[in-house]
Amino acid sequence: MSETLRVAVIGAGRMGADHIQRLSKRIHGADVAAVVDVDLGRAQAAIEGVPGAVALADAEEALNNGDVNAVLIATPGFLHEDILLKALGKDIPILCEKPLTPDAESAWKIVEAEVALGHKRIQVGFMRRFDAEYATLGSIIRNQELGELLMLHHQHRNPGTPPGFTNEMLINDSVVHEFDAIRFFTGEEITSVQVRLGKATRNAPTGQHDPQHVLIETESGVLADVEIYVNAKFGYEVATQASFEDGIVSIGGDRGAYIRSNGHWGGNVTAGFEERFGAAYDVEIQSWVDAALKGEIGGPSAWDGYATAACCEAGVEAQKNGEKVAVKLNAKPGLYE
Amino acid sequence: MSETLRVAVIGAGRMGADHIQRLSKRIHGADVAAVVDVDLGRAQAAIEGVPGAVALADAEEALNNGDVNAVLIATPGFLHEDILLKALGKDIPILCEKPLTPDAESAWKIVEAEVALGHKRIQVGFMRRFDAEYATLGSIIRNQELGELLMLHHQHRNPGTPPGFTNEMLINDSVVHEFDAIRFFTGEEITSVQVRLGKATRNAPTGQHDPQHVLIETESGVLADVEIYVNAKFGYEVATQASFEDGIVSIGGDRGAYIRSNGHWGGNVTAGFEERFGAAYDVEIQSWVDAALKGEIGGPSAWDGYATAACCEAGVEAQKNGEKVAVKLNAKPGLYE
Amino acid sequence: MSETLRVAVIGAGRMGADHIQRLSKRIHGADVAAVVDVDLGRAQAAIEGVPGAVALADAEEALNNGDVNAVLIATPGFLHEDILLKALGKDIPILCEKPLTPDAESAWKIVEAEVALGHKRIQVGFMRRFDAEYATLGSIIRNQELGELLMLHHQHRNPGTPPGFTNEMLINDSVVHEFDAIRFFTGEEITSVQVRLGKATRNAPTGQHDPQHVLIETESGVLADVEIYVNAKFGYEVATQASFEDGIVSIGGDRGAYIRSNGHWGGNVTAGFEERFGAAYDVEIQSWVDAALKGEIGGPSAWDGYATAACCEAGVEAQKNGEKVAVKLNAKPGLYE
Amino acid sequence: MSETLRVAVIGAGRMGADHIQRLSKRIHGADVAAVVDVDLGRAQAAIEGVPGAVALADAEEALNNGDVNAVLIATPGFLHEDILLKALGKDIPILCEKPLTPDAESAWKIVEAEVALGHKRIQVGFMRRFDAEYATLGSIIRNQELGELLMLHHQHRNPGTPPGFTNEMLINDSVVHEFDAIRFFTGEEITSVQVRLGKATRNAPTGQHDPQHVLIETESGVLADVEIYVNAKFGYEVATQASFEDGIVSIGGDRGAYIRSNGHWGGNVTAGFEERFGAAYDVEIQSWVDAALKGEIGGPSAWDGYATAACCEAGVEAQKNGEKVAVKLNAKPGLYE
Repeated sequence: MSETLRVAVIGAGRMGADHIQRLSKRIHGADVAAVVDVDLGRAQAAIEGVPGAVALADAEEALNNGDVNAVLIATPGFLHEDILLKALGKDIPILCEKPLTPDAESAWKIVEAEVALGHKRIQVGFMRRFDAEYATLGSIIRNQELGELLMLHHQHRNPGTPPGFTNEMLINDSVVHEFDAIRFFTGEEITSVQVRLGKATRNAPTGQHDPQHVLIETESGVLADVEIYVNAKFGYEVATQASFEDGIVSIGGDRGAYIRSNGHWGGNVTAGFEERFGAAYDVEIQSWVDAALKGEIGGPSAWDGYATAACCEAGVEAQKNGEKVAVKLNAKPGLYE
Repeated sequence: MSETLRVAVIGAGRMGADHIQRLSKRIHGADVAAVVDVDLGRAQAAIEGVPGAVALADAEEALNNGDVNAVLIATPGFLHEDILLKALGKDIPILCEKPLTPDAESAWKIVEAEVALGHKRIQVGFMRRFDAEYATLGSIIRNQELGELLMLHHQHRNPGTPPGFTNEMLINDSVVHEFDAIRFFTGEEITSVQVRLGKATRNAPTGQHDPQHVLIETESGVLADVEIYVNAKFGYEVATQASFEDGIVSIGGDRGAYIRSNGHWGGNVTAGFEERFGAAYDVEIQSWVDAALKGEIGGPSAWDGYATAACCEAGVEAQKNGEKVAVKLNAKPGLYE
Repeated sequence: MSETLRVAVIGAGRMGADHIQRLSKRIHGADVAAVVDVDLGRAQAAIEGVPGAVALADAEEALNNGDVNAVLIATPGFLHEDILLKALGKDIPILCEKPLTPDAESAWKIVEAEVALGHKRIQVGFMRRFDAEYATLGSIIRNQELGELLMLHHQHRNPGTPPGFTNEMLINDSVVHEFDAIRFFTGEEITSVQVRLGKATRNAPTGQHDPQHVLIETESGVLADVEIYVNAKFGYEVATQASFEDGIVSIGGDRGAYIRSNGHWGGNVTAGFEERFGAAYDVEIQSWVDAALKGEIGGPSAWDGYATAACCEAGVEAQKNGEKVAVKLNAKPGLYE
Repeated sequence: MSETLRVAVIGAGRMGADHIQRLSKRIHGADVAAVVDVDLGRAQAAIEGVPGAVALADAEEALNNGDVNAVLIATPGFLHEDILLKALGKDIPILCEKPLTPDAESAWKIVEAEVALGHKRIQVGFMRRFDAEYATLGSIIRNQELGELLMLHHQHRNPGTPPGFTNEMLINDSVVHEFDAIRFFTGEEITSVQVRLGKATRNAPTGQHDPQHVLIETESGVLADVEIYVNAKFGYEVATQASFEDGIVSIGGDRGAYIRSNGHWGGNVTAGFEERFGAAYDVEIQSWVDAALKGEIGGPSAWDGYATAACCEAGVEAQKNGEKVAVKLNAKPGLYE
């Protein structure tokens, strides 16, 4: 493979624009070759100050561009399936923002297409796996430093939600991260999901029941739960507490300068996910670039995208019926072992 | 009432002995008049260095002793009912260690007897209500300083369990504290209890499934849960995190000297409940003594004892059937409003 | 000695009134027999709700009262010498608020009078020795758990100062606590004191140069320093960080509920010394009462009062001349070994 | 200027090798063109896996290489002067690891040469200025968010020292960072330095007196001090506490996963400066690359290098004589205003 990834970024919205900066300013070994957005003006704005990049309105045109040898997909999830299949057809490295696709059926199609191709090309954007604290906790679990992992308690809190954020998106866009994190920590698939709805905040937009309490079980019986609270106002927090046979580990506390004034001690709460996970995004993209230059992938696979899509499907059903809903998974293709 | 409480302490075991020291050495306005234990030798040992106290083997004899004008019950719970009824018959101040009685039916008999007496004489030993951090969180909730309370997440962890600690005692002896705390924080009764059993630690004695995840709802829909983990080895922890509309409050973190050496930072974990709640016990007993000298009670009432007994009954049933079990309560007598 | 201390409290100001509450409501084994204040009305107000206590305007009258068998001195420091000598003449237990006296010469007279009496009767009110965190750090030092102690860094911060608080009182009333703490931690006498004056806050009253940086050495060469800052506004803090050969220990961080709201995390700063050291005062007084009932003292002695008075004298001189000032001590009488 | 910096790295030791990785793997806009080391084998080892780089034994040869358009100097400090003067002669961007040179006289020669050149080419490697927490504290000071800055207390602790680390290097290699940080925070020059030597650890190599307490004053009278302790064993710590008129700010606490097990709570201490400041190094180098591509510098200047060299000279003299030593500075050339 060539020495430098020439990346087509599909989607020039918030995440896409962020990744364009990263690839063109901070990531060694990659450049932005093309930016695609159905809003061509947005694509053109995104390539300002990015030498050598072209703005396009059509993803297929970008994939056919001879200067492009990799693709990063940052469109809304419902557009992923088509682009993924076309990019797999080109057999080039693909970094696809989560979710792989919005439902298990379409995610499974992607898995089948990649299995047919015969080697892994898709990496899914579960960037928490690249966060230093997640890595530390994952290592404590895998090495059984504190005996067996027994329980996982997750808190996922956002200050507020953007317009159009629906009740199902609490599962599909937010808890999907914990679905992957639990799978990453335990190395097991999730077997059931249940959702408790209780007292709701006055600060949620119509249609959202917020917070929700999501109950999760894994293959070996690890009990996990997620307090998802997306209009929590105070700030951003993604924290986990793991109970082991021989100890307790917590990650995700606040950081930085500690100030005492006017009868109060403390600091500033993390404002959002960019502040919390900005460095992890850099590590994620660099990891993908480094692996892609060797013809490999460097993180979560299409299988991970498919399995979390199945969790989300169960989660949304559990949101509605209040029952424990089993997660249904096809047999895992050998490509992903 | 006289200027000084002359207290008969019933039960000279771990808690009884602790209360004898407290009443005779640290609490102003009270003295120990009698110590009762079926093991008379243990009662005699307990009064060494306690001037003016007598050792007895029979609780009724103590209640009939003219020098006694108050009673503190620290026997195992199954012995409480008989002593409580006799002490109510004497119409003297009673401090009864939790649980009031081990089941809702017998607890209700105590409530009926006190209602018949016409004034409150029984205070139940839910001493967390006297802990400074519990008081702070309770005040934030009551004053709605951060808007409505939405969720409560509790962690209750012990390093290990004494011989004879059964699976039901995880609910009846441990979670009973959270049942009362949730009632204290919310000012509401608990309406249902559910128990999740997952992966269990190798460190639990035969017969105990540890940890357990207890799911609780209150009248207004506040979702609470308790991670009860009684063979957690690392130390003792009782912590709560409350989610509000406008913020998050945590209590129960570790304290004291902060040490850095040998590549590690941190401190010593609280060793047990005496270390964590010793000062709260002092405040509790002092509060009872002060109120008793005025003919009142200064803390949790027999109604609180009864209501938590009903929660425990639902909890033990939920432990067995894995379902959500409704908590059944009789109508609240006017005496307790 | 009798079973109960009948205490004359001399001085019914802020500290005196606080001790009257403690002795009459919370301390087992002691009662208030008399309250003395030159302002008789203040003494009379102080004994309201204190059964069996008399209000007096003259300390000598209290000491001659047959109902009095102990004395607690809480007047301003310049009045201590006369009362101490008279109380020593009665040979009764004495708890004297710090400073013992305001200067080394008068403090030495007290030491000589007690040595002539032949047994220790005076305990000085350095109540930090009874604080749990101070006790922990003291124990780590004495047991050499982290090797030799090398340096001590102290922060002493008050939100503001009462009217009449002079520049010398930064040393005599505030740093005097660190003088005793350093002596307590190291078990050594202080050999020199130096004071650095730099940029001053606009929030200090005229005449005070605030903050000041006090440099201290002990017999074995331990370097200590104190950041004294008495108009620090944000709250109250008394913290120490000790550097050892094998680690670092910090005490005095903030406590209690941890709140996150509105983009900020943290808690409430301790408001003042009563909040920080209230429990230590209780332990101190109880320790004195328990020892006094056996004819002993239970804490800092007149020697400790004298030695810190000598430190203060050196400190005030160092404030003025900017030089390192040696601390001069008489030979230690055998009574205090 | 060309689109990419082609950097000659002079010195392939610990820091040089680290910067080679950074420039060739993580920094966008720069590549390593040459690596110079008197030990040619070390230079050759350092360019393995660095495409397009040559290994050389002579710095002048690298500067004359047509492929080189920038230089990063990472040799021991005593070699800096000669290379700096030659690189200034080439008028190319220079990043020079601290110290600029080891003494004020030679540092002043560099300043004079750059002034003669007429524009700033030298950036000095004070990378703390690029650390997020330092930036936060600096911003609080500059914006006077908490009123005037009054005092700065610094702790600088290393687990141990490499072979050959002399007593003077506690000042010249370690405290030099605080000299620059104090200048950066206050925007003022340092006017005097004093050093206290007290009890020393058994863990220091012969010739080092460790710890030392360094007392510093700035132009406006801010009192700063540094506890320098380079054989502290427990780990690495660089912390600062700033006292303002209206509050206190602390930076530099430990981070990461919080673990409770076996009666202890806490986490892992930072192991060394790479772990603590690795991200700051990346930001520093990227800042230098970005500015260099525009013909500017992006951080501390040769003046900063000279002024801290003067502080170090005063500090080493103060180490020896125990007195307060004035810092002597030439007038600041207009180039650096």
